Amino acid sequence: MSNLKVDADRLWSSLMETARYGGTPDGGIRRLTLTPEDRQVRDWLRGECEALGCTVTVDALGNMFACRPGTEAGALPVAMGSHLDTQPTGGKFDGILGVLAGLEVLRTLDAAGYRTRRPLMLVNWTNEEGSRFSPAMLCSGAYAGVFAVEDVLARPDARGITFGEALQAIGYAGEAEVGSVRFGEMFELHIEQGPVLEHEGAVIGIVTGVQGMRWYDLVVEGRAAHAGTTPMALRRDALVGAAHIVLIVHRIAREHGGVATVGEIGVSDASRNVVPGEVRMTLDLRHPESAVLAAMEAAIEAALAGPDLAATPVRLARLWDSPPVAFDAGCIAAIREGAAAAGYPAREIVSGAGHDSVYVARVAPTAMIFVPCKEGLSHNPAESATPADCAAGAQTLLNAVLARADRTDSD
Amino acid sequence: MSNLKVDADRLWSSLMETARYGGTPDGGIRRLTLTPEDRQVRDWLRGECEALGCTVTVDALGNMFACRPGTEAGALPVAMGSHLDTQPTGGKFDGILGVLAGLEVLRTLDAAGYRTRRPLMLVNWTNEEGSRFSPAMLCSGAYAGVFAVEDVLARPDARGITFGEALQAIGYAGEAEVGSVRFGEMFELHIEQGPVLEHEGAVIGIVTGVQGMRWYDLVVEGRAAHAGTTPMALRRDALVGAAHIVLIVHRIAREHGGVATVGEIGVSDASRNVVPGEVRMTLDLRHPESAVLAAMEAAIEAALAGPDLAATPVRLARLWDSPPVAFDAGCIAAIREGAAAAGYPAREIVSGAGHDSVYVARVAPTAMIFVPCKEGLSHNPAESATPADCAAGAQTLLNAVLARADRTDSD
Ligand SMILES: NC(=O)NCCC(=O)O
Ligand SMILES: NC(=O)NCCC(=O)O
Repeated sequence: MSNLKVDADRLWSSLMETARYGGTPDGGIRRLTLTPEDRQVRDWLRGECEALGCTVTVDALGNMFACRPGTEAGALPVAMGSHLDTQPTGGKFDGILGVLAGLEVLRTLDAAGYRTRRPLMLVNWTNEEGSRFSPAMLCSGAYAGVFAVEDVLARPDARGITFGEALQAIGYAGEAEVGSVRFGEMFELHIEQGPVLEHEGAVIGIVTGVQGMRWYDLVVEGRAAHAGTTPMALRRDALVGAAHIVLIVHRIAREHGGVATVGEIGVSDASRNVVPGEVRMTLDLRHPESAVLAAMEAAIEAALAGPDLAATPVRLARLWDSPPVAFDAGCIAAIREGAAAAGYPAREIVSGAGHDSVYVARVAPTAMIFVPCKEGLSHNPAESATPADCAAGAQTLLNAVLARADRTDSD
Repeated sequence: MSNLKVDADRLWSSLMETARYGGTPDGGIRRLTLTPEDRQVRDWLRGECEALGCTVTVDALGNMFACRPGTEAGALPVAMGSHLDTQPTGGKFDGILGVLAGLEVLRTLDAAGYRTRRPLMLVNWTNEEGSRFSPAMLCSGAYAGVFAVEDVLARPDARGITFGEALQAIGYAGEAEVGSVRFGEMFELHIEQGPVLEHEGAVIGIVTGVQGMRWYDLVVEGRAAHAGTTPMALRRDALVGAAHIVLIVHRIAREHGGVATVGEIGVSDASRNVVPGEVRMTLDLRHPESAVLAAMEAAIEAALAGPDLAATPVRLARLWDSPPVAFDAGCIAAIREGAAAAGYPAREIVSGAGHDSVYVARVAPTAMIFVPCKEGLSHNPAESATPADCAAGAQTLLNAVLARADRTDSD
């Protein structure tokens, strides 16, 4: 291992500096993908990478790749990175830490005048959050061939603006073909977004995989009627059906040891004095095992056919299925050794959140590094991680990346 | 009683003709108050009234008053009317029948060359539905002094457009001071919007009063968190709280023999993969007796302080209280005699829906006439009434109005 050290203060300064782009009064960030705020932070990143002598390539979905040359001609780069978009109620670390820690690795090497054998590549994936355009990890998915580029460009947001229109509007529709910018392997640093590391006193999570997740749209059909004249017994109230569904999916998640979330809900043509005639809602189901996830889905389908929903039939459409993922053993080992070399307490962990690495793992060896976040809280403006933990994650990233980038074929 | 007869076909033609203004493909009308569609139907009404020699006065809230002179100087008019705005999922009869039947009365008198002793007045009240601007019956309420005019003008719709801006935009901010256009008494014809008349085989409902109603806004407070990483047991999911509330208010309504409706619901900063941190919802409670309505409210407040909502505290704000109303005995008698004279099967009934007559009754003797609507369905595009029933309502209105307008002080 080298004795190169990341600069904890420099990393923290960059986190705080870029938190202005979409920063909210409560200390969070609201930087939905492909908005003007997203453009600001992208422009900033591009400038910083170019100042380090990197070449920045943007593909047709706005994915950004900054390449720092190595000493060996023709070698595939070692990639690092994550995403810079946030949730509507986003914090300052989710995704951002992974990109800025990758930048800190490049800055550390640059300051030391260190050239790796293989090139290094810093990646910023578009639309990881899945909040503006569904589903999550959309553009790492397209990079991996899971979603067709034309299909992604045509997806509308809630206001009917397509991905393609939004991408053009911020000037990040790049020239490179999606999937054409190659790398040999990828490391992604991220806050855990859950409570395990903090609870166990570990600083580094060696992420061995990601649980499975499925997204659904539901439509509950009732009958619009007058709120003052329609007797309770004669109503077909779609919101009563929806209320049952919320409680049913939560019960089923608990029974199966998984999680279930209804994040969005709305009454069609809503009015205070109209019995809801139609309700639209979303559902997010997760579990580390495919079989259990399938059992949860089956249990929900059975419950929707049961007595609580008899008056208000439900249409359930699965729009996304991201199976559980196991990361690459070699990349996992590099992270374990990188954390051990720096003396950080580390443990293996399975991710509850989806990450771009889920899709990248389909096309290149991949693994992830987690650092703790306060009380496991994420997708919340109060999301918080310490400067020391962020630096420990960046140092582990540097160690793992260097080990792989300087490895000779005989290693 | 006179032997004047309303023209059933002419009334029906006007109902069908004006149904084009805001007409929807499913046969309903979506004509929210103070929209371009509302302006179209208002312009149409003004033209028809002026063609009959009426003077149309518009007040500062857009309430329209068409006056047909009587033979006796200085006598207060007898008023008829209702409203021309609809729900988002409105039908072709709610409110509209009352205005167009009043027009049919004027046309019948005009065709017969009949002059009443006292003047007649046809009224179209602004924003009866309460769907765009809360609460319902807003401008008959202001006419009766219940709401301040400045306060009404400042009320915003869901998109932040104020009542005053919308009124200016359609050109119906009139010169007359609100409440200055006086009448001696008022009759309002309306579809029942409930199942009683149809079920009992009655053609005319003699409406003796209106049940009490209260409107509320609720805010459920949870904690926004990651949908994938936050264990079910650690969540404070505002939508789970809201689901409990929906079921609780329905149970309490049934227990008290009243009705309860949550018509609007939304997650603040909603995202598919975020545990809801805040939910906003509406509540509409009704019962014919004030004491029971108060008991329902108290039971709901107690339940909101109970274990189901322990993790997600609720703020309940009552924004409207319309107590039960008893209509004027003299007006009720005129309706009873008007129906009997025409030989229609009639019965007394209490209205489950709110109507402009609720507020008008505070400043002038008032009563209402109901006619059946199919299956009691209203606030739904499938709302339906027969031409014969509509004409029976209009004939009863004519009979009642004539009896009062020709009455001498010694009657
Ligand atoms: N890391 C993260 O929050 N990604 C969003 C996708 C998900 O919902 O897990
Ligand atoms: N008649 C009618 O539907 N009015 C709307 C006010 C209410 O909700 O009762």
